[in-house]
Amino acid sequence: MSEALWSLKWEKGELVLLDQTKLPGNISYIHCRESREVGEAISRLSVRGAPAIGVAAAYGMVLAFKEIKKEGLSGPSLKDAFHRAARELAAARPTAVNLSWAVREMVHTFDTLPEEEALAGLIERAEAIEREDKALCSAMADHGADLFKGRKNLRILTHCNTGALATAGIGTAFGVIYRLYERGQIERVYADETRPLLQGARLTGTELMENGIPATLITDSMAGWVMKEKKIDAVIVGADRIAANGDAANKVGTYGLSVLCAYHHIPFYITAPFSTFDFSISSGDEISIEERNPEEVRQIRGIYTAPKDMPVFNPAFDVAPHTLITGIITEKGVLTPPYDVTIKNYERSLQL
Amino acid sequence: MSEALWSLKWEKGELVLLDQTKLPGNISYIHCRESREVGEAISRLSVRGAPAIGVAAAYGMVLAFKEIKKEGLSGPSLKDAFHRAARELAAARPTAVNLSWAVREMVHTFDTLPEEEALAGLIERAEAIEREDKALCSAMADHGADLFKGRKNLRILTHCNTGALATAGIGTAFGVIYRLYERGQIERVYADETRPLLQGARLTGTELMENGIPATLITDSMAGWVMKEKKIDAVIVGADRIAANGDAANKVGTYGLSVLCAYHHIPFYITAPFSTFDFSISSGDEISIEERNPEEVRQIRGIYTAPKDMPVFNPAFDVAPHTLITGIITEKGVLTPPYDVTIKNYERSLQL
Repeated sequence: MSEALWSLKWEKGELVLLDQTKLPGNISYIHCRESREVGEAISRLSVRGAPAIGVAAAYGMVLAFKEIKKEGLSGPSLKDAFHRAARELAAARPTAVNLSWAVREMVHTFDTLPEEEALAGLIERAEAIEREDKALCSAMADHGADLFKGRKNLRILTHCNTGALATAGIGTAFGVIYRLYERGQIERVYADETRPLLQGARLTGTELMENGIPATLITDSMAGWVMKEKKIDAVIVGADRIAANGDAANKVGTYGLSVLCAYHHIPFYITAPFSTFDFSISSGDEISIEERNPEEVRQIRGIYTAPKDMPVFNPAFDVAPHTLITGIITEKGVLTPPYDVTIKNYERSLQL
Repeated sequence: MSEALWSLKWEKGELVLLDQTKLPGNISYIHCRESREVGEAISRLSVRGAPAIGVAAAYGMVLAFKEIKKEGLSGPSLKDAFHRAARELAAARPTAVNLSWAVREMVHTFDTLPEEEALAGLIERAEAIEREDKALCSAMADHGADLFKGRKNLRILTHCNTGALATAGIGTAFGVIYRLYERGQIERVYADETRPLLQGARLTGTELMENGIPATLITDSMAGWVMKEKKIDAVIVGADRIAANGDAANKVGTYGLSVLCAYHHIPFYITAPFSTFDFSISSGDEISIEERNPEEVRQIRGIYTAPKDMPVFNPAFDVAPHTLITGIITEKGVLTPPYDVTIKNYERSLQL
C-alpha cells in the first residue's frame, strides 16, 4: 500500500488528517490538536468515508479530554465539559452513523473509568477502534480476493471511493482489489468517475495511481460499454447500508451497475463490514434516500454546466436489489443467496 | 420553439454557427468564412449533432469552392483542390456519417455542373440539405409522437442533445419530445447530463428550459434509478449511425440505457432520418468507434478532477444492439423488428 496515502494517523498526541478536499493533485495534511479542528475537518469533508470518520472522531474525543484537563477541570465539571464536547463533535455530520457511534463509545469509556485512568483508557479505546477497522478491512480483502483463486488478468470495475481514504485500513471494496493486485491477479481496474461528487475520479483515481495499480478512468455512462467491450470479470463496490434481505444502499449509480452486471452475466459484489448491516430493516424499501443539494448536479467544482434554474433530482444513494447481488463480502466471509438466511446466520455469528 | 436557439445560419456568404462549447450561459457565434474554420468547428464540437454537422459541412463546401476560385484555379486543378477540400472536411469527425454524406452530395453536385454554374448550384444544394433537414425533423416528430396517441402525463428520459442545437430543425429525438409537449402529453422530461462533454446538461438543459418544458436534470449514473423510481414511460434518443440490422451507434451511454430499458420493460426508441443509416454495413460490429482526448474525462471545463497521468478510456459513441431497440423513428414512419426486413424495405422506399 502506498505510504503516502492514508486518511489519518495518531502521532505525538496529534491527529494528522490527509486533506481530501485538496485531491487530486495536492497531498497535504491537517494537524489537529483540538477536537474542534477534528469536527471542522469532518464537516468540511477533509476526512470522509464512514469508517475513517468514526476513527477520526474517536481521536477527536481524546483531544477533547486533553483540552478540558488543561483548563484544570475535574469531577462533575470535567464530565459536563466532556459530554458537551461529545455532542458538539457528533453534530459535525449528523447523518454519519459511524461518527455518533464512535463518540458514544468514547463517552462510555470515559464514564466507566476513574479520572486518573481516563486519558490512557480513551487513547486505548481510540486505538482499538482504529485497529479493528484495519483488521476488518484486511479480513474483507482476504475473503474477497479468495473468490478469484487461481484466476489471472482480472478486469475489475469499481464505483465511488472505498479505499485507504475512506477507512483506517486498506478499504472495503478497494481492499479486495488491492489484495488481488498484491497477489498478481489484476490486469486492470476501471474506475467510474462517480458523479456528482467525483469520488471515483478524485479519490479512487489517486489511490490507484499512487499504488501503481494499472487503472483506467471512465465516465459513469461508459460502464455498460466497458463491461461489454473490455470483458469485465467482476464489479466490486462498497455499501452504506444493507437490509436483512440483502438489498444494499450505496452511492448513486450502484443500482444501474447491478442491472448492467445481470445483463452481461458479470458477478456483482458488495463489500461491507458488520457495521453497515441494518438487521432491523427487512428490505431496501425501508431505506430513506438522502436527496442532496441540486447545485451538486448543476455545477461541477463551482462552474455551472446546466441552466441555473433547472430542476434536479439528486439522490445520494440508490439501492441494489439483493436479486442482482452475487455476493456480499464481509469480514467473516462471503454471504451468498438466499440472503435472508445467510444474513440471519451472519447476524447470529456476530452475537457469539 | 424558442427563437433564441438555432445551431447554424447561412448569412451574407458566411456560415454563422452558435458556439455550443460556450453553453450554458454564453450565447456567442462563430462566423466561418473558410471551410477550414468549419472543419475546426466540427472537430471542436462548436457545431455538433449529426444533421447539423451535415448542413454545416454542405455550407463548408460552398466556402471551400469560393476559396479555391479566389486562388484562381480552374479545370482539373480546381476539381483536384475541391476534392481535396472535401476529404479534409470529411476527416474532421470520422464517425459522423452525415458529414461524409453531405460532403459527398456536394462533390456530386460540383462534379455534375459546369464550372460557371458551380457556385450557385452548390449554394442551392446546401440550402436544399438544410430545408430537407427541417422537413425531416418535423416528419420524425409527428411519427414519433403518434406512438403515444391517447396517452397523457408521459415521463420521458433522453440522453445527449438532439434538438434545435443538433439539427437545422426542431431535432430528432428532441423533436419527438417537443411534439409531445405541444400536444400536451408530457409530464416531465429527464435529461442525462451526458458526460464527458455534458451535452445533456448544457444543451438539452438549455433547450428544455428555453421552451418551458417541465424538465429534470440527472447525472448519467442516476438513469437506472430514475427508470425504477420515476416510472419512465419511454427513453428516446438520437443516433449517429445505424447499421442494416438496426444496431445504432449514438453518444456513449446509449448502450447502457438500452440495457437498463430492457430490464425495466421500458420502450427504447432511436430517432434518426435516412442519412443516419449506413445500409452498407451489416451490423454495429463494423462501426469503428472514435476515441477522443483523455483530457475530456480527466478534466471538467478545464479543472482536473482526476490524477493528471491517469489512463482514460474515452469512446465518443457506443452501439445499442438492435435486439434492445423497440423502434426506430424515421421520417417515413417507425421501423420495428425484424429490422433486417424493415430497414431493407425502408431503403427501397428511399430509392423510389
